[in-house]
Amino acid sequence: MNKKIVTLLTDFGLTDSYVAEMKAVILSICPNVTIIDISHVIAEYNIRMGAYLLARSVEYFPLGTIHVAVVDPGVGGPRKPILVETNKGFLVGPDNGLLMLAAEKQGIKHVYKIENKKYMLPKISETFHGRDIFAPTAAYLALGIPPQEFGKEVFDYVKPSFSEPKIQKNKIFGEIIHIDHFGNLVTNIKPELLYEKKVEYGSHLKIALGKRKPVKTVFLRTYSEAPQGKILVMVGSGDFIEISANLANAAKLLNAKIGMKIILIL
Amino acid sequence: MNKKIVTLLTDFGLTDSYVAEMKAVILSICPNVTIIDISHVIAEYNIRMGAYLLARSVEYFPLGTIHVAVVDPGVGGPRKPILVETNKGFLVGPDNGLLMLAAEKQGIKHVYKIENKKYMLPKISETFHGRDIFAPTAAYLALGIPPQEFGKEVFDYVKPSFSEPKIQKNKIFGEIIHIDHFGNLVTNIKPELLYEKKVEYGSHLKIALGKRKPVKTVFLRTYSEAPQGKILVMVGSGDFIEISANLANAAKLLNAKIGMKIILIL
Amino acid sequence: MNKKIVTLLTDFGLTDSYVAEMKAVILSICPNVTIIDISHVIAEYNIRMGAYLLARSVEYFPLGTIHVAVVDPGVGGPRKPILVETNKGFLVGPDNGLLMLAAEKQGIKHVYKIENKKYMLPKISETFHGRDIFAPTAAYLALGIPPQEFGKEVFDYVKPSFSEPKIQKNKIFGEIIHIDHFGNLVTNIKPELLYEKKVEYGSHLKIALGKRKPVKTVFLRTYSEAPQGKILVMVGSGDFIEISANLANAAKLLNAKIGMKIILIL
Repeated sequence: MNKKIVTLLTDFGLTDSYVAEMKAVILSICPNVTIIDISHVIAEYNIRMGAYLLARSVEYFPLGTIHVAVVDPGVGGPRKPILVETNKGFLVGPDNGLLMLAAEKQGIKHVYKIENKKYMLPKISETFHGRDIFAPTAAYLALGIPPQEFGKEVFDYVKPSFSEPKIQKNKIFGEIIHIDHFGNLVTNIKPELLYEKKVEYGSHLKIALGKRKPVKTVFLRTYSEAPQGKILVMVGSGDFIEISANLANAAKLLNAKIGMKIILIL
Repeated sequence: MNKKIVTLLTDFGLTDSYVAEMKAVILSICPNVTIIDISHVIAEYNIRMGAYLLARSVEYFPLGTIHVAVVDPGVGGPRKPILVETNKGFLVGPDNGLLMLAAEKQGIKHVYKIENKKYMLPKISETFHGRDIFAPTAAYLALGIPPQEFGKEVFDYVKPSFSEPKIQKNKIFGEIIHIDHFGNLVTNIKPELLYEKKVEYGSHLKIALGKRKPVKTVFLRTYSEAPQGKILVMVGSGDFIEISANLANAAKLLNAKIGMKIILIL
Repeated sequence: MNKKIVTLLTDFGLTDSYVAEMKAVILSICPNVTIIDISHVIAEYNIRMGAYLLARSVEYFPLGTIHVAVVDPGVGGPRKPILVETNKGFLVGPDNGLLMLAAEKQGIKHVYKIENKKYMLPKISETFHGRDIFAPTAAYLALGIPPQEFGKEVFDYVKPSFSEPKIQKNKIFGEIIHIDHFGNLVTNIKPELLYEKKVEYGSHLKIALGKRKPVKTVFLRTYSEAPQGKILVMVGSGDFIEISANLANAAKLLNAKIGMKIILIL
């Protein structure tokens, strides 16, 4: 039988030993797992960014993978620790919406509150549930403990209310949900919205960021089809519309930030 | 039998191939290990920060884990490479105090000088003992070579002389030993010192950084008990007193640096 | 039989889920591999830096290791995806010179164009061949698929034309090819060039960066032989001449950048 995979996504950064302590706890309980880091550089407390990166990456992992995600500004407060059983595997983390984009993509079967102290560390700190609750939950799931053993099923979990794009005539109103390492602006606009409007590779369109003047650009297949340093619109690898620049940083060129409104004028 | 775990903690950063070369050497000698990174972003040459993070994380790893730590400003000079056998596992690194907080926590059995060239790479660079001496030592330990095979026992190893907190009447004098990714200030003050003085959750106290004017704050269980952006005092996940802020960066708010003196006025 | 090792080197950075998606694809196809990160912080589109770090680290990995490297400004354009079979293992990535320093070091047996869609993901994005083409190639190689199954042998692959050092009388003209985390300047000058000129440890020499005035320095064995903060010349752990400073950052002291010309005046 193949080793179970446990993934980790947090806003803990790369300097501290927090992530290593989670891995140590997991390996102490279930030595026979493969642990994969998705990202630990989620912007602090940025649940939407974490939800986006988790949702886009889960689909590439094998069935049965256990995903632990911790972007948890409410740690130690009243927010519940939860465990989501999906059609593809498990998601473990705080009940603040972080897990739900990925969970909906995989198909939610059940959501459980994690409350059985038998499957937590004996001493639970007020500020590090990643190590003391979520890591042991993942490890015991990997050992084969059934999800209903961790606590009672709940239905009042937090559904994320992330903004959806809107269409008005020849305009698509969206939002920048992520800026990647290369400065590509990931929007919340699915390429299907452009295809419905008969936009094709090579079509000219305008983009407007925030309340700024629209700028002309082109819908292209890949970076290198644009002249060097020029802005283009394309389908990103996460299957959302992205604003990019060939061999340049679109976020710097456009002075763009996460959360900005964007209008595509077709 | 479970795979041995080897952990790595260095100040090598994340850009270079140094850490990967250490892993390559370990896997070439002992393919059947799990390698876990604790941190590679220890501030350059900062032995105390490395010692703190190593000491707090070792306790979560399984018995028999082999920890390699390299913060080594004296590489190639007269400082010894050492191997510490503890009650819980092994620690491998330079003899400069880096390993000793963790070693004392685990209980020191023997300290050996690493000098048997049979267990080093054939060619030893002057500047990268992490790859050429410490990584092979860890790998041969994982293979089951007894620690006394690596060299003679030594007793003159460097004991760290990290400052200890002092109590005078209603004041506890400590130091900031680490600032984490979220801006939490980790002090060298154990919570027991507050409990002895009858400080309880909800108690008011003042903190003074360096020679600055004391500021009022409260001892709380977790971040979210404080108003947003407000400073609080709490027990951190490493079991030291930390100065934090709810959804804000305490280090920035207080303009604090590692090594600063701090006074808790109860 | 030992698990195959797959290494990853990219310019994808540490924030996004790109690297995790590559690992997910690899583990979905071939669960029984060990994946090691070499670096994901290659300067964006800097093929030479990637080639240098890949070439210096491959030699420490076991025979049969599969190295995937993606610094790929031409992704989606006409550049070929290639697979190099060497005397020591395999190299997988774009045909832009990135793999070739490592390949030449290991001894090239055959270079194949990757074109058999059977060994790619069913849906291939225009911008993320790391996940959709290179990761599956590595995984299928790890499963034992012979390299000629992936596509036809090619001979017109890109040979890197990285600059070579030149000697004129008592001067060696080189270039800074990498600056590491500690600020050490790695040059393209092999130590043998100094040995031929009878330079020994302790020899005095001058260095000139760009068109600046030469500064006096010494050829030493290791950092700690120089006074604190002073510049020295030494043999780096990658077996090239490096310009360093004892307990200080030579790149900052000398205001040096990657790509700068350097003259050693013996």
